[in-house]
Amino acid sequence: MSSLRIGLLGHGTVGGAFEQLLGERATAIARLTAVTPEIVGVLTRSSGDFDEILERCDLVVELIGGVDPARDYVRRALDGGRHVVTANKQLLSRHGEELWSLARERGVLLGFEAAVAGVIPVVRVLRESLAAAHVERIHGIVNGTTNFILTEMTRSGCDYGDALAQAQRLGFAEADPTDDVSGADAAAKMAILARLAFGVPVHIDEVRSEGITQITSDDIAYAREFGLSLKLIGTAERLAQGISVRVHPAFLYSGHPLASVNGAFNAVTVESDAITEITMSGPGAGGSQTASAVLGDVVAAIGGARTLGPPLPPLAIIEDVVSAFYLHMEVDDRPGVLAQVAQLLGDAGASIKSVVQQGSGERAQLMMVTHPLPRSRLAVALERIEALEHVRAAPRAISVINEEFV
Amino acid sequence: MSSLRIGLLGHGTVGGAFEQLLGERATAIARLTAVTPEIVGVLTRSSGDFDEILERCDLVVELIGGVDPARDYVRRALDGGRHVVTANKQLLSRHGEELWSLARERGVLLGFEAAVAGVIPVVRVLRESLAAAHVERIHGIVNGTTNFILTEMTRSGCDYGDALAQAQRLGFAEADPTDDVSGADAAAKMAILARLAFGVPVHIDEVRSEGITQITSDDIAYAREFGLSLKLIGTAERLAQGISVRVHPAFLYSGHPLASVNGAFNAVTVESDAITEITMSGPGAGGSQTASAVLGDVVAAIGGARTLGPPLPPLAIIEDVVSAFYLHMEVDDRPGVLAQVAQLLGDAGASIKSVVQQGSGERAQLMMVTHPLPRSRLAVALERIEALEHVRAAPRAISVINEEFV
Repeated sequence: MSSLRIGLLGHGTVGGAFEQLLGERATAIARLTAVTPEIVGVLTRSSGDFDEILERCDLVVELIGGVDPARDYVRRALDGGRHVVTANKQLLSRHGEELWSLARERGVLLGFEAAVAGVIPVVRVLRESLAAAHVERIHGIVNGTTNFILTEMTRSGCDYGDALAQAQRLGFAEADPTDDVSGADAAAKMAILARLAFGVPVHIDEVRSEGITQITSDDIAYAREFGLSLKLIGTAERLAQGISVRVHPAFLYSGHPLASVNGAFNAVTVESDAITEITMSGPGAGGSQTASAVLGDVVAAIGGARTLGPPLPPLAIIEDVVSAFYLHMEVDDRPGVLAQVAQLLGDAGASIKSVVQQGSGERAQLMMVTHPLPRSRLAVALERIEALEHVRAAPRAISVINEEFV
Repeated sequence: MSSLRIGLLGHGTVGGAFEQLLGERATAIARLTAVTPEIVGVLTRSSGDFDEILERCDLVVELIGGVDPARDYVRRALDGGRHVVTANKQLLSRHGEELWSLARERGVLLGFEAAVAGVIPVVRVLRESLAAAHVERIHGIVNGTTNFILTEMTRSGCDYGDALAQAQRLGFAEADPTDDVSGADAAAKMAILARLAFGVPVHIDEVRSEGITQITSDDIAYAREFGLSLKLIGTAERLAQGISVRVHPAFLYSGHPLASVNGAFNAVTVESDAITEITMSGPGAGGSQTASAVLGDVVAAIGGARTLGPPLPPLAIIEDVVSAFYLHMEVDDRPGVLAQVAQLLGDAGASIKSVVQQGSGERAQLMMVTHPLPRSRLAVALERIEALEHVRAAPRAISVINEEFV
């Protein structure tokens, strides 16, 4: 029975959970693989020496997070012929190509299942789908904090601030939630997923992202009238002229497989010609879930898993994607306003699928869902609508994902 | 660039789809793995010679189905040091241990992702979960035909016969649907999943199974009153005294991740301490989906995937599992009948969670949901209830899966 010596960088919540889980599962892993994994060194802020740990180990588990000094550690570990397993999405969405390339050269694994979608094994599935099928599109709920907040707003009718406070009380949001609620966390994950799905390099800066801080309880309440539910959706899709990778709030029809994913859960739908679609869902990343994903990669390394193939030539990033939109406008409740708005939309090529007008004294709220059109054309119409005399504020637009499944 | 020579046994719908998909994906696979897969021989009923094909290939794809002669071919291929990829659930649920053992001895892969749940990569996920987490339970919708029929009954209110005819017209059911509607197909898949999840040998004969032919549109309509949806559910679970592997119709609360899986789809939920739960869903096995799963295993073989570990000692198979039940009785509409029924249930330790009585002239229908109790105790009560003067037919009982998620 041989052993796999692990150097553990970082010993916070996830590091501690990993150490415990490894202890519980070491016997089962040894039985299946004939290799016993064991931790031979731990680096924390206050103890341990990286060089010394590197010297003694076969595989490095990097759970420090952030770009520096993680990048340097991972680079040196790979360069020294060690497998690396990491949960570090910031690092991979910024410096992934450099690191994957190094892993390929040295013939080791750079595993990152834990970096993307909690316990959902989407990395492994995409790696295989990439070979066996032509992936057309990924839609994902890849941030549990924002999904919790939106679910809470939907469930209780409360506004964004209250839902955020609730998420913080329950430990689903950090004291500083910026990275989650701005969409930046989801953007990093979508960059990594797009690289996997399409085989081309994608940097986080190429992901257009929008968060949920502007969402009001009105949006959620009114959208119910159209049978929609609101999620922060990451999309990576292949288009005629290139690819689009983006994160923004979107309304889903109730039949969509992601529409019923509630609370601090993650879910990813992969669409391709051969498989039509696979949806995977599970809890977002708590300590023990992330530890479980990390350990899965350790087992994969024992089993001889390979790192990503070299990237294909980059594809153009398409900004102006086609989508249906939900529109929300505050207008004066007077005859002719709806006609003016409809005219401007029509002039821009936006055709209206459904409309609801709700009066409340002098004011009225106008909610619409359009048929699909390019975002740029909608923007032109919205600018003109905002300039109308009886429109009281900038109209708000949220994408509607209108594939209807089964 | 080296090549992987494939011998293809069977050239029906799946075999043809596999050959086409391989042609489309060979370049992408070669780019990722530096190995080009190619078909070097095809065995059909009327052409080709097995020994000659075996001689020339590195990997056998077995798509003949059935036990004989598939068992002999697979055995000889493994014995000759060839990888085997198969979609044959009957073979694996009856002779899996013999074949996995042979694959282990010869150091080759016996891949069977395509045998279990359409395009859902549940085999791969379970193999890894098994190492990284302690699987407690699997619930699956693993037969697309029966899920289509039940969905159709729910959607249109039609009865079983009409829904089956509809499934046959649309190509979702065979002319002879027995294997699907009896639960036998699902039982074979659950035997394989239980082996994966718990690491112990499970033969199809150890899976208690019940099909959907007895389900009436009344069951579905009345159950709506309790907020339940009806599915054919395969369960593999770890209990205090052993394991239970079974297939039967079950009502799911609307919050259950499998409750919203409709049409000819498959879905599997894996529960464990560390990951809490993962749900995967996707279309059931059409030709191109199965071909895609087969090709995934071919890629895994190229990537050095290993076959299953040796089995742990068998665990006792527990027949008398605890469950909540939906009960449906036809009774005379007279005072005291409900009290008698409730008394007999109470005597057997069955406590009632909710009850609906619907009169229709002289008759009434009594629908109940119980709190969880052992199936054997319920059986005692039902026997006594059937003997009551004013009960018109044997009461019917269907399990209710009452974990409430999120």
